Amino acid sequence: MNTIPYMTQQSQPRIGILGGGQLGRMIIQEALSYNIDIHILDPDPRAPCHQIASSFQCGNITDYHTVIAFGTDKDILSVEIENVNIEALETLQQQGKKIFPQPNILRIIKDKGLQKQFLVEHNFPTAPFVLVNNREDIQQQCAFLPAVNKVRTGGFDGRGVAILHSANDLSQAFDSPGILEKWIPFTKELSVIVARNQDKQTATFPVVECEFNSSSNLVELLFSPADISQEIERQAQEIAVKIIESLDMNGLLAVEFFLTNDNQLLVNEIAPRPHNSGHHTIECNYTSQFGQYLRSILNLPLGSTDTILPGVMINLVGEPQHSGQVNIVGINEAMQQKGVFVHLYGKNETKPNRKMGHITVMHENIQEAKRIARKLMQTVKVIAK
Amino acid sequence: MNTIPYMTQQSQPRIGILGGGQLGRMIIQEALSYNIDIHILDPDPRAPCHQIASSFQCGNITDYHTVIAFGTDKDILSVEIENVNIEALETLQQQGKKIFPQPNILRIIKDKGLQKQFLVEHNFPTAPFVLVNNREDIQQQCAFLPAVNKVRTGGFDGRGVAILHSANDLSQAFDSPGILEKWIPFTKELSVIVARNQDKQTATFPVVECEFNSSSNLVELLFSPADISQEIERQAQEIAVKIIESLDMNGLLAVEFFLTNDNQLLVNEIAPRPHNSGHHTIECNYTSQFGQYLRSILNLPLGSTDTILPGVMINLVGEPQHSGQVNIVGINEAMQQKGVFVHLYGKNETKPNRKMGHITVMHENIQEAKRIARKLMQTVKVIAK
Repeated sequence: MNTIPYMTQQSQPRIGILGGGQLGRMIIQEALSYNIDIHILDPDPRAPCHQIASSFQCGNITDYHTVIAFGTDKDILSVEIENVNIEALETLQQQGKKIFPQPNILRIIKDKGLQKQFLVEHNFPTAPFVLVNNREDIQQQCAFLPAVNKVRTGGFDGRGVAILHSANDLSQAFDSPGILEKWIPFTKELSVIVARNQDKQTATFPVVECEFNSSSNLVELLFSPADISQEIERQAQEIAVKIIESLDMNGLLAVEFFLTNDNQLLVNEIAPRPHNSGHHTIECNYTSQFGQYLRSILNLPLGSTDTILPGVMINLVGEPQHSGQVNIVGINEAMQQKGVFVHLYGKNETKPNRKMGHITVMHENIQEAKRIARKLMQTVKVIAK
Repeated sequence: MNTIPYMTQQSQPRIGILGGGQLGRMIIQEALSYNIDIHILDPDPRAPCHQIASSFQCGNITDYHTVIAFGTDKDILSVEIENVNIEALETLQQQGKKIFPQPNILRIIKDKGLQKQFLVEHNFPTAPFVLVNNREDIQQQCAFLPAVNKVRTGGFDGRGVAILHSANDLSQAFDSPGILEKWIPFTKELSVIVARNQDKQTATFPVVECEFNSSSNLVELLFSPADISQEIERQAQEIAVKIIESLDMNGLLAVEFFLTNDNQLLVNEIAPRPHNSGHHTIECNYTSQFGQYLRSILNLPLGSTDTILPGVMINLVGEPQHSGQVNIVGINEAMQQKGVFVHLYGKNETKPNRKMGHITVMHENIQEAKRIARKLMQTVKVIAK
């Protein structure tokens, strides 16, 4: 196990993260409390991390040579997004760098076909699926519908996902390598975040419940704790631990589930990094997902994931038909309320469905937190000036 | 009242803070969640803010021309330390800049003689005092002993304070302009932090109890809530509000009290900025003192100061006889415990009694938090490598 003192300035390992969006920003906000320097590579010169990273390098995270150059003077490399150049990370790993999550795991997870195959091969409960290469393949699989069509790589933040109820929806299918996943009716979408360090210590956060916006496919509201039985809570946490152990992964893993009408858990997707379903942990849990992420990649002792108080998280995304300089309506009224925590991501330009920030509502009574959150959803809007 | 949207990048006021130490660092950590840019002036190129400020200018905060130059392109100026060039702030105020706290208030508070006169003139309860110019003056006042001798300006973090029990202690008196404050036995030292914005809205944090290290005169442990009666709680908060209103101050004010053996509150000192007695609010209160400070100087609605859970704060200061590259012993064990929050200030070099960080212990039961904290005080030590 490592210790914080080994991370004091001169002797601390140089840590580089590929991607400098809001996840990187919240990682850095947490890292500041531990004197941990974080170096960032991101293609956007105005990325949310650009001003607060120990160093910020502007460059393409999917380009082999750019990632190699960024990694050369680092000791530990990590990611806040899966769509990175994995070959470069493998080369850096061979050179003795520590890469968490490990490149072979990123390779599996970033490809939704390989991810599904991994889950099936390891007997994790998940909806049946078939691999498809293009729209023609999907047409051959009409008997498999209703199904969800996902692109194998590059989908993000709700993009690259289409629900095909019947052959009538085929025009919405992606004409590119993807998967067709059997559509199984469910009552809830759940998520568990699990961490694992090099000492093989694991820790799971309590299960949360996600409410998605049906048009954008983005998490709109998140409830912690989820309104589920203790048995489902236990099962979901157990599956999450088994997945991170099967992957032999070091880092933070989010496991999204469907809870079916007959009370079965099906793994939907996994993500090897801090996750949108864990933002409430900043206030609501003894350790935040960002602190836990740092502990996991630095082999520090994992922190308590216990809940301090229940909470509801609202994603602040750009309103449809609004592009340009951001203006957040109603934020003032939100800030006046006890237990309302505003987090903006340092982005100046809004676009439809762009994640601009989030709000956490913390309250002793989850029902009351939900009531406040649903009201804030009506009043707080991200528009253009 | 202002709103957050008006603070989005292009149209936000340019905010400059004199001083870039740990208070500035924690202000910036909070400001990041609101997309608020903070520009810093500090003489130390490696000050805790140097890497995370929107811009960091290295310069002398007590030099008139340096402060004027720093302030020229700012709209709002503030301080995280009192010992700044007030004439420059007055000039900038005349030029139309907003200065919070206002320069005339800084002038009163930074001089402990003027500060005591203000308290006495406004009938706030405080120990009797006399002004002295040098050690000879103090010798004339032997009848006034036992007393506390404080230098009028420049004292900080426990420096510039001597307790003179009798004429035998005169060698420890300061041979410079100061005050002699009657030594009155007390049972507790308390502190209240109060905020006030331009709309004259005020909000007080719950009263906390401070335990000082008798040799360094630094806060060693802080308990929230204080173990006092509701009536004392009410009185202390009322006095704090009356002081900030009497000063007509906008910003954050810490009011330190003695609670005498006969249960009277005496104002000890006031500080017009975030304060060491408020660090626990980061985790333990719905709004942190740093968030409240930002709201107060930007005329945003003040946040709820209610307690989430009780807490104890431990200052991590450099051990005596240790100077050099920092090494924090025992931090690993501390981080393993539920409810233990570590905050390091990004300082690489430790010196005896230098404030290097703090730890907050949060627990439903304040007695249990005290037990954990007293144990951590034995195990966590800031030494040199």
